[in-house]
Amino acid sequence: MNKQSYLQICEKIAPYIHRTPVLSSQLINEISGCEVFFKCENFQKMGAFKMRGATNAILNLTAAQRAKGVVTHSSGNFAQALSLAARSLGVKAYIVMPSSAPKVKIEAVKAYGGIVSICPPTLEDREESSKAIEQEKGASFLHPSNDDDVIHGQGTAAIELLEDHPSLNAIFTPVGGGGLLAGTALATSIFAPDCKVYAGEPAEVDDAYRSLKSGKIETNETANTMADGLKTQLGDRNFPIIQEHVKAIFLVEETEILEALKLIWTRMKIVVEPSAAVAFAALLKNKGLFKNQKVGIIISGGNVDLDNLPFN
Amino acid sequence: MNKQSYLQICEKIAPYIHRTPVLSSQLINEISGCEVFFKCENFQKMGAFKMRGATNAILNLTAAQRAKGVVTHSSGNFAQALSLAARSLGVKAYIVMPSSAPKVKIEAVKAYGGIVSICPPTLEDREESSKAIEQEKGASFLHPSNDDDVIHGQGTAAIELLEDHPSLNAIFTPVGGGGLLAGTALATSIFAPDCKVYAGEPAEVDDAYRSLKSGKIETNETANTMADGLKTQLGDRNFPIIQEHVKAIFLVEETEILEALKLIWTRMKIVVEPSAAVAFAALLKNKGLFKNQKVGIIISGGNVDLDNLPFN
Repeated sequence: MNKQSYLQICEKIAPYIHRTPVLSSQLINEISGCEVFFKCENFQKMGAFKMRGATNAILNLTAAQRAKGVVTHSSGNFAQALSLAARSLGVKAYIVMPSSAPKVKIEAVKAYGGIVSICPPTLEDREESSKAIEQEKGASFLHPSNDDDVIHGQGTAAIELLEDHPSLNAIFTPVGGGGLLAGTALATSIFAPDCKVYAGEPAEVDDAYRSLKSGKIETNETANTMADGLKTQLGDRNFPIIQEHVKAIFLVEETEILEALKLIWTRMKIVVEPSAAVAFAALLKNKGLFKNQKVGIIISGGNVDLDNLPFN
Repeated sequence: MNKQSYLQICEKIAPYIHRTPVLSSQLINEISGCEVFFKCENFQKMGAFKMRGATNAILNLTAAQRAKGVVTHSSGNFAQALSLAARSLGVKAYIVMPSSAPKVKIEAVKAYGGIVSICPPTLEDREESSKAIEQEKGASFLHPSNDDDVIHGQGTAAIELLEDHPSLNAIFTPVGGGGLLAGTALATSIFAPDCKVYAGEPAEVDDAYRSLKSGKIETNETANTMADGLKTQLGDRNFPIIQEHVKAIFLVEETEILEALKLIWTRMKIVVEPSAAVAFAALLKNKGLFKNQKVGIIISGGNVDLDNLPFN
């Protein structure tokens, strides 16, 4: 990837996504001891950055591939993103969702035109159901995070952020499957080589943190975090990029995620999902390292279930 | 009031307030059957439109009056607004709050520099405590809604909205004490005489609706609404303006307020208080009357207690 190829992606996906605003708050700056710039992907179409990668991945299929549709297994934002991106491009999207997925998420995917198949709630069943659709329909499988086109698409949020604020010293993202982090790190290494990329990760699902330490992809036994978008694993496409271009991953406790979430909701007056607060929580926890710097935070999304919020 | 005098107010208060953004959403437009423009006073300093009226009222005091401070009794946003506006202008703000006020609100007032006196939770006690401070300190009493300078200050939100979108057919506000509604209606009658002003009011506190019908200020026996900013009464300064310039007040049920609130939170991804959703609920309930029109909604504020949200 180089500047030119990235700018082509930005141009290609532009008609299908929002250019999201970058917000800041004097009070948040005072609390953080640095200037914080929130890239608000909660205002993105379907409410999350995943719209970028999904759109780019479909646009990179051939006409013959597009005619047969796309398939993924996801119970989260990527299911909605792929459904909406596919609909915008006149492509069928087959979405395999576990029977354990909240009804509200299944309904959201259907509302964006996704064709939902429900399967038993194991990874094996998801992969099997998804493979069956690939074979039966000839649909192209698109992984939510471990796919080069998806990774490059996610990187466009950082490119926009750096266009608006070229002198950032650091950019923070959350890390779950690793698509946003890898995309951000790779794009930043090209557009602003002096800007360092960091991630926040819930201590409860610290697989990415441990993977960076051990040098191989680690897994989690449990996933007891309110940041439900971050329960997924790194993959072989995004992990090497993260190893090469990410400066550090900071772990944060659930109480720190909640505190950061509350600060964003009450001070910024914007609805963001717990996963989005993980990056800001990581900055707050390590603010001594970023004193008086300019720090970008990619707010990953804003899809919450109002009837199941993590507050008291 | 005329255009010139209003523009002078806008200019005078500008250094102390935010020019708030106007947001819209394709999906909200589809649901509403019209183009909706949300004037986001939840992004205002201290989180509500009240900052405008408080600032204007203090700026209209003489230097001698300012030196002795200002006083009000309020447990809501005006207490915070007066405290912050006073601090910005180097003036002392004495705030009388009932002992029943939530601790989080008392702390918020103190954080903005307000000098808090706690009194028993009756209107009589509040007025007495406030009068005692007027006499002892020589402070100027400023009413949260029944004061000409406050009313004119609140009207500046509509002026900005009409500057951004001059061809609005209608503007909706919530109505509680009546300051925002009167200010909006008066300013709109001058800046956009063809644009009609409407209010939404909770059916549980329908005093303004009944007052318009009866021609005199009515009161409520009970106030069982989640829109806690709208439990206050009209006054003799704002009621005549509302009678002259407001086209209609629409009542909305609590379930309708909740539905509108959820739509704004989940679709716009912004944090607004229940009172702010009342105006949008009134539009949704009467959308047949506004088909294909351009409708402004003044989002009054975004101060919520995350530990006491009205969701399940």
